[in-house]
Amino acid sequence: MIKGVKFSGIHCGIKKNGKKDLALALFDKPALAFGVFTKNRVKAPSVLITKKRIKENEIKALIVVSGNACVCVKGDKEDAIRITKTLANVLNTEDKYIAHASTGVIGVKLPVEKVINAIPALLKNLKEDVHDFANAITTTDAFEKIETQKFTIENKTVKILGVAKGAGMIAPDLATMLVFLFTDAVIEKKALDLALKEVVEESFNSINVDGDTSTNDMVLLFSTRTAGNKEITLKNGFKEFRDALKNVCLGLAKKIVMDGEGATKLIEINVKGAKTVKDAKKVAKTVANSQLVKTAFYGEDPNWGRIMAAVGRSGVKIKQEKVNIKIQGFLVVKNGVEAKGFDEAILKEALKPKEIKVEIDLNLGKAETIFYTSDLTIEYVKINSAYRT
Amino acid sequence: MIKGVKFSGIHCGIKKNGKKDLALALFDKPALAFGVFTKNRVKAPSVLITKKRIKENEIKALIVVSGNACVCVKGDKEDAIRITKTLANVLNTEDKYIAHASTGVIGVKLPVEKVINAIPALLKNLKEDVHDFANAITTTDAFEKIETQKFTIENKTVKILGVAKGAGMIAPDLATMLVFLFTDAVIEKKALDLALKEVVEESFNSINVDGDTSTNDMVLLFSTRTAGNKEITLKNGFKEFRDALKNVCLGLAKKIVMDGEGATKLIEINVKGAKTVKDAKKVAKTVANSQLVKTAFYGEDPNWGRIMAAVGRSGVKIKQEKVNIKIQGFLVVKNGVEAKGFDEAILKEALKPKEIKVEIDLNLGKAETIFYTSDLTIEYVKINSAYRT
Repeated sequence: MIKGVKFSGIHCGIKKNGKKDLALALFDKPALAFGVFTKNRVKAPSVLITKKRIKENEIKALIVVSGNACVCVKGDKEDAIRITKTLANVLNTEDKYIAHASTGVIGVKLPVEKVINAIPALLKNLKEDVHDFANAITTTDAFEKIETQKFTIENKTVKILGVAKGAGMIAPDLATMLVFLFTDAVIEKKALDLALKEVVEESFNSINVDGDTSTNDMVLLFSTRTAGNKEITLKNGFKEFRDALKNVCLGLAKKIVMDGEGATKLIEINVKGAKTVKDAKKVAKTVANSQLVKTAFYGEDPNWGRIMAAVGRSGVKIKQEKVNIKIQGFLVVKNGVEAKGFDEAILKEALKPKEIKVEIDLNLGKAETIFYTSDLTIEYVKINSAYRT
Repeated sequence: MIKGVKFSGIHCGIKKNGKKDLALALFDKPALAFGVFTKNRVKAPSVLITKKRIKENEIKALIVVSGNACVCVKGDKEDAIRITKTLANVLNTEDKYIAHASTGVIGVKLPVEKVINAIPALLKNLKEDVHDFANAITTTDAFEKIETQKFTIENKTVKILGVAKGAGMIAPDLATMLVFLFTDAVIEKKALDLALKEVVEESFNSINVDGDTSTNDMVLLFSTRTAGNKEITLKNGFKEFRDALKNVCLGLAKKIVMDGEGATKLIEINVKGAKTVKDAKKVAKTVANSQLVKTAFYGEDPNWGRIMAAVGRSGVKIKQEKVNIKIQGFLVVKNGVEAKGFDEAILKEALKPKEIKVEIDLNLGKAETIFYTSDLTIEYVKINSAYRT
C-alpha cells in the first residue's frame, strides 16, 4: 500500500494461544524516521535502543515482539540487542539501522530463541498488505487498528498508513501503546519531525483510558520518500501533510480508547475558553481521569456535579462563576451553578449513545483542547483484577 | 467527654430516609480554633465562610448540614449565611463566631427552612456524648468514625476527640471529607495551628480512595482550654500533643479509607529512600492512584509490574536499577528487576488479609512517607454508576 515498505506477521511461540506475536516492516531503502517515546522512567530496552538509533540513523527495518514486554527482567537488554543483531545479520546490514518495539507482560523472561529462530519465516512472509503486521502487534486488543489517508500535492498523491495496538495498556499486566506510521511522502526531516511531535500531542497525548503510562510506549513515523512529490518542507505542503497525519492518528487514538477493556462509551471532552492550551489540557485531563465522572457516564447519569468538582481540583485557576458546561449539547451549568430549565429526563436519554460529548467553557481566554476517554465499567474491574495467567 | 463542649445531632428533613442530618457542637466559652480546607477551586459557601471566620475569631458553635453540599446552586451563599445568622441570634451572639460545614449532593437547592426550623430542637438535644453528632454528619458512611486519645502533661490529663465523615467522598454524587477535632488542652494558638497543619499532611493528605477532592472538605480543630494544664507551646509539650493528635487523625483517616464504598482492602504504601519527602509522596500517590494497582490488589494478584510502572511514571527521577519492592514483607523486585526466588504461590496467599503492606525503596536518599489507599472493586463501580436518587 505504501511503496517501498513490506510487512510481515507470524506466530513464533511467545503467545501460548497460537496467535501471531512477531511482526516486521522492511524498507527497500533506509527510511527517514522520527519517534516519540514514553516518559516513564522505567523504560524497556526496546525503547532505549530505538530512541537512540532513530535519532542517529535512517531505518532499514522495524521488528516488533508482542506478548512479552521484555522489561524488568534480567537479561532484557541483551535479548533486545540479540534480536536486532540477528535481523541485521540476515539483512546484511548493521543493527544500528534496526528499530525494535516490544509489548506484553512485564518482568517475565522472553523466550528469545523462539524469536531468533523465527526470523527466516518472518522474512519469507513479507507482503505489501499490512494486516498480518497489524494483527501480530496486538496483545489483548479486541480488533486490529489501521487507518489510512491520502492527499494530493501538485498532482502527486501522498499516502499515510497507521497501525496501532492499544487496549493492552489497560489489560492484565500488559502495558503498551504502540503506533507505527508509514508514508511515501518526500519530506524534509525537520517537517517530518515537527508534524509528528505536534500531532502526537493532539491525538495520543489527548487520550486516557486509566491514567497508566507504560514502560514500552512509542510512536514511530517512517517515510519511504517514494511518492514523487516535490519535497514537503515547513513552507511547502506542511499543513496538508500534518492534517492528513492528524486524521490518521486521531482515528487510531479513538480506536484505542474504544478498545479499552470493558469500555462502553467514547467520551469527548472539549475544554475551551482557557488562558492557555496547557490549562485547557490540565482541566480536560483531570475530568477524563476522574473515576467518579467515568463511572457516572457508564451509568448514563448526567452527574455534572462530578465534572464541576473535577474542573475545580485540576490545579488551574478557574473562576467558578464563569464556568459553563454542556453535556450532549444541553447546557447543564451556567455561570458555575445548575443551568435553568435543563430537563434531566431528556438529558439522561441523550446519554444512551456510545459517543458522548462534554463541553466545558472556562470563559477566561481563547485556548482550547479536545481530550478523549472511556467510561469505567464493571467489566474493566473484572478483567483487571483477574489473576495473571 | 471534652469539658467545655456539648454535642447534638437530629433529623431536620434533608435526608429522605429519616436519618439524622443536622449536627451542632456548642462551646461554653469561645474555643481556640484552626482549620485546613479543600484546595478545590470550586468551594462551597460553608468552606468560604468558615475559613474566614476561623482565621479572625474564636468560635462559639459549629453547625453541620448533611445530605446536601449547598454548592453550585443559586442562593447557596445566602442559605449558608442565613443558617449561621439564625443560630447566632438564638445563641445571642454574632454570626462571625459560628463555624459551618455542609456535605451531600452538589447542585441541589437546600431546604433551608427545614434547617432553620430545627435549630431549637437541635439546641434542646445537647449532650456531652458525641455519638448523635458523629451520626448526623455522615451521609453514605457505613459506620460512625470516632477516635480518642489522652496523654498526661505534668500530672494533668489532656484529651483529644476526633469525629469524621468520609465514605461520602466516593459516593454517588456526594463529595466530602469532614473532620472535627476537639481538645481540652490549654495551648497557644501557634502550637495548635502548626500541630494540625503537620498532622493533616501525614494523615488526611496521605490517603486516597479515588483521587477526587471535594468542594466541601475541611478539617477543624477546636480547643476549649479546660484541662488545667500548663500551656502547651512549641517548646513545652508540643511533641506529646502532636503525637496524640496524629494518632486520632491517622485512626480516622484509615477508617475513611476502609469505608470507601466497595473497598475490601486497606493498602499501606511505604515509600522510602527518596531524596525528599515530596518525592516520596509523589511516588506513593501515583501508586495509590493507579487503577491497575488497585484492581490487582482487589484480585489478590501480586502484580509488581504494575507497581513498577507506576513508580516510573510518577514524575520523580527514580533510577530503575536501584528500586526494591516488597509486598507483605516479600521481596519481589530487587535492583529494578524481578527478585530471585520469590514464590508467587506463597505471595498470593499472603494477599488474602484485609490489610496489605507495600514497601518501595528508591535507594536515592533518606526521605520516606506512608500513604493509604483502598482497592478498586466491582462494588465501587456498581455504587458509583448507579443513578442518583
